[in-house]
Amino acid sequence: MPFTPLHDRVLVRRIEADAKTTGGLIIPDSAKEKPQEGEVVSVGAGATGEDGDRIAMDVKAGDRILFGKWSGSEIRLDGEELLIMKESDILGIMA
Amino acid sequence: MPFTPLHDRVLVRRIEADAKTTGGLIIPDSAKEKPQEGEVVSVGAGATGEDGDRIAMDVKAGDRILFGKWSGSEIRLDGEELLIMKESDILGIMA
Amino acid sequence: MPFTPLHDRVLVRRIEADAKTTGGLIIPDSAKEKPQEGEVVSVGAGATGEDGDRIAMDVKAGDRILFGKWSGSEIRLDGEELLIMKESDILGIMA
Amino acid sequence: MPFTPLHDRVLVRRIEADAKTTGGLIIPDSAKEKPQEGEVVSVGAGATGEDGDRIAMDVKAGDRILFGKWSGSEIRLDGEELLIMKESDILGIMA
Amino acid sequence: MPFTPLHDRVLVRRIEADAKTTGGLIIPDSAKEKPQEGEVVSVGAGATGEDGDRIAMDVKAGDRILFGKWSGSEIRLDGEELLIMKESDILGIMA
Amino acid sequence: MPFTPLHDRVLVRRIEADAKTTGGLIIPDSAKEKPQEGEVVSVGAGATGEDGDRIAMDVKAGDRILFGKWSGSEIRLDGEELLIMKESDILGIMA
Amino acid sequence: MPFTPLHDRVLVRRIEADAKTTGGLIIPDSAKEKPQEGEVVSVGAGATGEDGDRIAMDVKAGDRILFGKWSGSEIRLDGEELLIMKESDILGIMA
Repeated sequence: MPFTPLHDRVLVRRIEADAKTTGGLIIPDSAKEKPQEGEVVSVGAGATGEDGDRIAMDVKAGDRILFGKWSGSEIRLDGEELLIMKESDILGIMA
Repeated sequence: MPFTPLHDRVLVRRIEADAKTTGGLIIPDSAKEKPQEGEVVSVGAGATGEDGDRIAMDVKAGDRILFGKWSGSEIRLDGEELLIMKESDILGIMA
Repeated sequence: MPFTPLHDRVLVRRIEADAKTTGGLIIPDSAKEKPQEGEVVSVGAGATGEDGDRIAMDVKAGDRILFGKWSGSEIRLDGEELLIMKESDILGIMA
Repeated sequence: MPFTPLHDRVLVRRIEADAKTTGGLIIPDSAKEKPQEGEVVSVGAGATGEDGDRIAMDVKAGDRILFGKWSGSEIRLDGEELLIMKESDILGIMA
Repeated sequence: MPFTPLHDRVLVRRIEADAKTTGGLIIPDSAKEKPQEGEVVSVGAGATGEDGDRIAMDVKAGDRILFGKWSGSEIRLDGEELLIMKESDILGIMA
Repeated sequence: MPFTPLHDRVLVRRIEADAKTTGGLIIPDSAKEKPQEGEVVSVGAGATGEDGDRIAMDVKAGDRILFGKWSGSEIRLDGEELLIMKESDILGIMA
Repeated sequence: MPFTPLHDRVLVRRIEADAKTTGGLIIPDSAKEKPQEGEVVSVGAGATGEDGDRIAMDVKAGDRILFGKWSGSEIRLDGEELLIMKESDILGIMA
């Protein structure tokens, strides 16, 4: 994907709920129209702390993540709808 | 549980009030429909301080905790309803 | 008490105003229905500063304290109604 | 006074305006019903900075101070009405 | 361009959506009248951290960037309409 | 003046606009009823930084200053109406 | 000019739009009645960081600057209408 998120931002591809039929994550009913699971496409180099050093990112490309329902800005890249969010908007990583 | 909370987040399984009959914690009446006791399922690696070091978590998987009535985001994982919250939302640990 | 407050939190047992008859603290009229004096039951290990070190607590179990009228969250532990508050909500210690 | 303020708090005894007849401070008309002059009764050990060290207090017991009209919480100690406020609420010290 | 942004600011030339016909970024419909892609014209020397050192900029002149729809202040320089924004308003860099 | 401002506060005597007839500062019409020029009467010892050191004051007694129209708290000292404000409320010093 | 801005403040003389006829900056229509270009008249010594050191200013007297339409406080000095603003309100410097 020809896009590098800046600082502590993460590019995310949403994983639609209807693609999951067995096991795995199930989104609560009230949130069904807006799934909260995604795959990390690319990550930034990390924010810069007050001491000038980068703070390393905890997620990497390929990670399957959960994120808050209203997190991120929607963008279209190469015809695909993606999300850019801050790493702090990510709740956790699916094993 | 195939889920790792990010940073200083904690995955929590609610302990229902009707499961406690002798001793232990009793939730005040006004909060009975939404218990505040839970069990820690898994914890993140900790937040990163300004100096780039991790700040160690004070709770660990298995801890029985108390948390504020409105804390955390509800998610469903493997068909089970769980909560993801920040460690700072946890009031304390039951011995 | 089988409960350890987290971080800089303090578990407090309210001291009812009607229990004081001579000397000591008298709560102003407007606050009589909600006394502001208490006894520290247990304290957390202290908050963690940006440098990763604990900031020591200034109150300890047994201290008689004054606290703001609206401070803390009420919980019931072993059938007793107690308060969990941050140390910063405590105004001072009675000698 | 059997009370030690916590952290950077100060226990203050209000000095009533009608007690001053010559020289000294005169409270503006609009504030006459709520004087802003007081005497420091006791002070806390000081707040703890991010580095874990105490930040020394600038006022001490006995200081005559000016403070903002709405500063502090009123308490009664040994039958006397006093104020607990943060040192930062104190405007200055009367020589 | 005879203009140097101050601190962590960036001078940006908007890239109009109608100039892109094949591949590349496509702005979602609801944002079509206000494209979010641009080219960095010049960058500031970076913000100054608490320790007095500059925090280096992550973007440089010539970078093609994505930025939030409402980011930046519009200015006209040499008859051209440009944007001045903070680097933190930039979402990422197109490869 | 028997008053020492606390921390980074400054005691200021307002200089009335009608006292200036030649040169010097002229207050804009809309602000005429509330002049913004003053003379520093006394200054505090300075705020204490996170490292416990004092941050030196940039103004001193006798300085003629400009300050924002709504800055400071009015007090009366020895029958004179004065202002206590934070040094950060002072816009600059008249040479 | 007999005035020294305090801390990180800057004294600015507005450059009227009608004074520019060839090249240079042109203010967008909607802002014409309130130009955003100016000349730095004098600068403060810089803010003081948490470590007690001055943070050097990036602008100097004589710099031609752009600033946000609503930045700064208007003052009159020696009969001239000027602006005092924080350096952080300045968008950039014209070469």
